[in-house]
Amino acid sequence: MSRIFNFAAGPAVLPDSVLERIRDDLPDWQGRGMSVMEVSHRGKDFVEVAERAEQSFRRLLGIPAGYKVLFMQGGATAQFAAVPLNLAGVGDTACFLNTGQWSIKAIAEARRYVEVEVLTDEQASNYTTVPEATSIKVPGGAAYLHYTPNETIGGVEFPYVPNPGSALLVADMSSTILSRPIDVSQFALIYAGAQKNIGPSGLTVVVVREDLLGRARKLTPTVLDYAAMASAGSMPNTPPTFAWYVAGLVFDWIEAGGGLEAMGQRNAAKAGMLYDYLDTSGFYANPVHPGCRSWMNVPFTLHRSELDKQFLLESRTAGLANLEGHRSVGGMRASLYNAMPVEGVKALIEFMQDFAQRHG
Amino acid sequence: MSRIFNFAAGPAVLPDSVLERIRDDLPDWQGRGMSVMEVSHRGKDFVEVAERAEQSFRRLLGIPAGYKVLFMQGGATAQFAAVPLNLAGVGDTACFLNTGQWSIKAIAEARRYVEVEVLTDEQASNYTTVPEATSIKVPGGAAYLHYTPNETIGGVEFPYVPNPGSALLVADMSSTILSRPIDVSQFALIYAGAQKNIGPSGLTVVVVREDLLGRARKLTPTVLDYAAMASAGSMPNTPPTFAWYVAGLVFDWIEAGGGLEAMGQRNAAKAGMLYDYLDTSGFYANPVHPGCRSWMNVPFTLHRSELDKQFLLESRTAGLANLEGHRSVGGMRASLYNAMPVEGVKALIEFMQDFAQRHG
Repeated sequence: MSRIFNFAAGPAVLPDSVLERIRDDLPDWQGRGMSVMEVSHRGKDFVEVAERAEQSFRRLLGIPAGYKVLFMQGGATAQFAAVPLNLAGVGDTACFLNTGQWSIKAIAEARRYVEVEVLTDEQASNYTTVPEATSIKVPGGAAYLHYTPNETIGGVEFPYVPNPGSALLVADMSSTILSRPIDVSQFALIYAGAQKNIGPSGLTVVVVREDLLGRARKLTPTVLDYAAMASAGSMPNTPPTFAWYVAGLVFDWIEAGGGLEAMGQRNAAKAGMLYDYLDTSGFYANPVHPGCRSWMNVPFTLHRSELDKQFLLESRTAGLANLEGHRSVGGMRASLYNAMPVEGVKALIEFMQDFAQRHG
Repeated sequence: MSRIFNFAAGPAVLPDSVLERIRDDLPDWQGRGMSVMEVSHRGKDFVEVAERAEQSFRRLLGIPAGYKVLFMQGGATAQFAAVPLNLAGVGDTACFLNTGQWSIKAIAEARRYVEVEVLTDEQASNYTTVPEATSIKVPGGAAYLHYTPNETIGGVEFPYVPNPGSALLVADMSSTILSRPIDVSQFALIYAGAQKNIGPSGLTVVVVREDLLGRARKLTPTVLDYAAMASAGSMPNTPPTFAWYVAGLVFDWIEAGGGLEAMGQRNAAKAGMLYDYLDTSGFYANPVHPGCRSWMNVPFTLHRSELDKQFLLESRTAGLANLEGHRSVGGMRASLYNAMPVEGVKALIEFMQDFAQRHG
């Protein structure tokens, strides 16, 4: 085994021990004579995997009674349609906080189904800020307030949970879920694509308040109808069983590592180290306002952008992979999801120091 | 490694060599220092995997120019909504041939979007027949004719391709795709959940005539809009990368094994052996009309149903797994997908002979 430090934004690094377990479960899953990919989702063996994963996820996030956890398909993009289809009638208003690329995508899809009111928009700062908490005024009668707690591309993160007033609070937590404790009871609906902190792509985890089930519009496709998913235990049809199994292994790994308190401390330390270095290097810079920098996605630029290619080439050779910035913003980006060890961040900083010295 | 013969109806058996390759690619995928689950879907390495898989699939089925191949999520159940949303306007008529449980599900979801006309219904035979080809009269003006070439639960299979008249022909090939050559040019749209002959669950392959793209209704969720999927190379968002990679390995395995001609001969032989035995055993029976018995799913009953539990117990001990019939029909079912070797069918028949002798 020769593993490197993988800073991909998603699909992203998974814990070594999880990958080893997946490998060891192939092709014979714990003496069953077949792999986990080859068994019925309705069979006892898989149902146990599925339920165990859900229970572990519930424990990790401290999900209160009265919430359903759904294992769905289609990524956050499917949820961009599912949320208005399930939570708002035709002509209803949904409010959004626009903090970057993923907010923009959520807004664009929602506009097809509801009246959209963008309450705050960080375009003026080139999406390097979040709104002041006190500036968020959700009008009475709005169906829900949607926001993106962590913008994967811009590397911006809310340091607080917005107050939705009398509206429902909905969050796309794809790139922040499980990175620290949260108070689920503040949310009506949380959704997250798995491919950052949960597992392989192709799985979306949804946490939804039970009293909101059954409101879906008449023409909502069954696979996007939360009530249909909930009443069938997320299995109105065949779920992505392998991804669900891997998610369970990742949840086990987080629990064994001390849960979300420990994860949050480690993530704060990892990100803090990198931001401290960026701010003092004189060679690199992070454009995001210090009060709302992401623990998960750290975009940065080189003082001389003509060195970008060289930086990528040399970092790859040094065992540091996937540091390219998103194609829409350029520069670099280091994603520091749960499975990125502290050693990876240290190795990155050491490389950056060395590179700066040689090219400064 | 201790593998058994796995007769599951889906998720189903995968080729041993494919599972071994997945294992060998963990946790270090061919020297990249990470697994295939951990790389960006937009990166060179994965794009190559994705394109290779599509090309291989196209070669296998001989897909003509003018058809798009899409890699989607949500299973056949998502397609039950996507088909009317993409191919029929409000108030249009869609025609269906009802041959069993999967037809019934497709019809139920379609009714929410279009006027449904069920042209033929095999309920009278308890879904053990298919209609006479000449009895299918698609009315002029119908948007499409939908049918299920192979019913996974009932074990019924069309020995011919229905004539859709002037309508578009749409087929749910989930449990028959890649089992033999087909003439794609007869179809407007083919879709198939991956978890039988393609790969892990969570991936749906769609083959659609290009001239049909762009007709989706205004409120079609982006993830179910064929045109949006096609124009983004099936990646408007993160696709299920691991399942796509495994699908590519399965396609390679089929090509290496002689393609669909060879696969079809082998599947005909496998199913033929089992049906021959069932018909002559005097102890077991298959209820399906001989002219339309499935090569993929062979339901059967024991002469004395009080022996069902004993049969399942003993067969499992004999290394023959997942022979339970679907919960809606009971009895037994042996699914003989591509990855089930001839030896597995022989072992099953031997066990059945022995069991019959001991309990006859």
